[in-house]
Amino acid sequence: MARRREHSREALTELALCAAERLLDEQGIAVLSTRRIAAEIGYSAATLYSVFSSLDDLCWQLNARTLKQLLDELDALGELAPREALKAYALCYVAFAARWPERWSLLFEHRTPETLQVPAWLNESIGRLFSQLELCLGELAPEVSAEELALTARTLWSGVHGVAVLQLRDKLFLPPQGKQEQMLVTLVDYHLDGWRLNRESRT
Amino acid sequence: MARRREHSREALTELALCAAERLLDEQGIAVLSTRRIAAEIGYSAATLYSVFSSLDDLCWQLNARTLKQLLDELDALGELAPREALKAYALCYVAFAARWPERWSLLFEHRTPETLQVPAWLNESIGRLFSQLELCLGELAPEVSAEELALTARTLWSGVHGVAVLQLRDKLFLPPQGKQEQMLVTLVDYHLDGWRLNRESRT
Repeated sequence: MARRREHSREALTELALCAAERLLDEQGIAVLSTRRIAAEIGYSAATLYSVFSSLDDLCWQLNARTLKQLLDELDALGELAPREALKAYALCYVAFAARWPERWSLLFEHRTPETLQVPAWLNESIGRLFSQLELCLGELAPEVSAEELALTARTLWSGVHGVAVLQLRDKLFLPPQGKQEQMLVTLVDYHLDGWRLNRESRT
Repeated sequence: MARRREHSREALTELALCAAERLLDEQGIAVLSTRRIAAEIGYSAATLYSVFSSLDDLCWQLNARTLKQLLDELDALGELAPREALKAYALCYVAFAARWPERWSLLFEHRTPETLQVPAWLNESIGRLFSQLELCLGELAPEVSAEELALTARTLWSGVHGVAVLQLRDKLFLPPQGKQEQMLVTLVDYHLDGWRLNRESRT
């Protein structure tokens, strides 16, 4: 185990996470194990456990990287009017899922055992995604409560997520294929228009 | 293998499918194999292959049963006005997913190898689900084309599916839990209202 001293703690963490992402991309969630990842980088599983408290911890860190990657892509879309931003986010989200199917799936497929608590920093990254959506929705409807914005963001995003998950599994059952962009734009437009009508009828 | 003659071909098929459903419900998709199913019913895998051409064939037949079960539940909702029917279908669909998570997941997780063709009878059952949605949508908008009805049904249902898949994985990120009914009703209402506005602006 001469290599054990070759890497600092930080470098080893980075090395392991990169190897885990490669494994995930190439072979899927099922093969992800500390033993496999350790073998990929020439360390023992015991050494990996010195930087990750468990496989769950490692998955959380992978998920935080995936979320950061996704948020960076959303940020890169730049300043847009709120409705256009929401459409651009939806298209970007579904394209991201198609490009990184396994990383994206790990975000949803990884189940934290009930005895463990999802770390606060991971929940914060998830919160950042929704904050961005809520910001756009708040610009469209400055009068509504934070609670309604939160619920609207999650309802709208469930729809976008549904398109993403179905297109990834090729289960949109739409001949011809490739209608998902039109579906996403429609989904956002109709939802926002329906929401506006509902707000107008309340006043 | 004295049992081989105990069951007719039909009875053996039924026995195997019931055992497969039990295995699926209790242990998930990952353990589904012809060997395991054969062991459960006291036959050899070779015997199973005399009634199912492959594990894919068996999964297709499981999926057809799940779809029939779902369609029967939708039918049991009875005659409703179209908008109410769509909401009732959405709630029923998500409740079905929660009650039979593994059977429901197999509908989406089972990937047919590219060398095989999904049988026409399975695609027909999927088509029946969408027909029912298109029927409701068509009552709301008799003037629109069959193509638009098909796309609208699939877009709306992707949203419903998104809520189902996220609540199943406990990923709606909504404190407090249990908002999915409200989300589903909102999703259907906003989509239908937005769609109506869009149609009105076209005329």
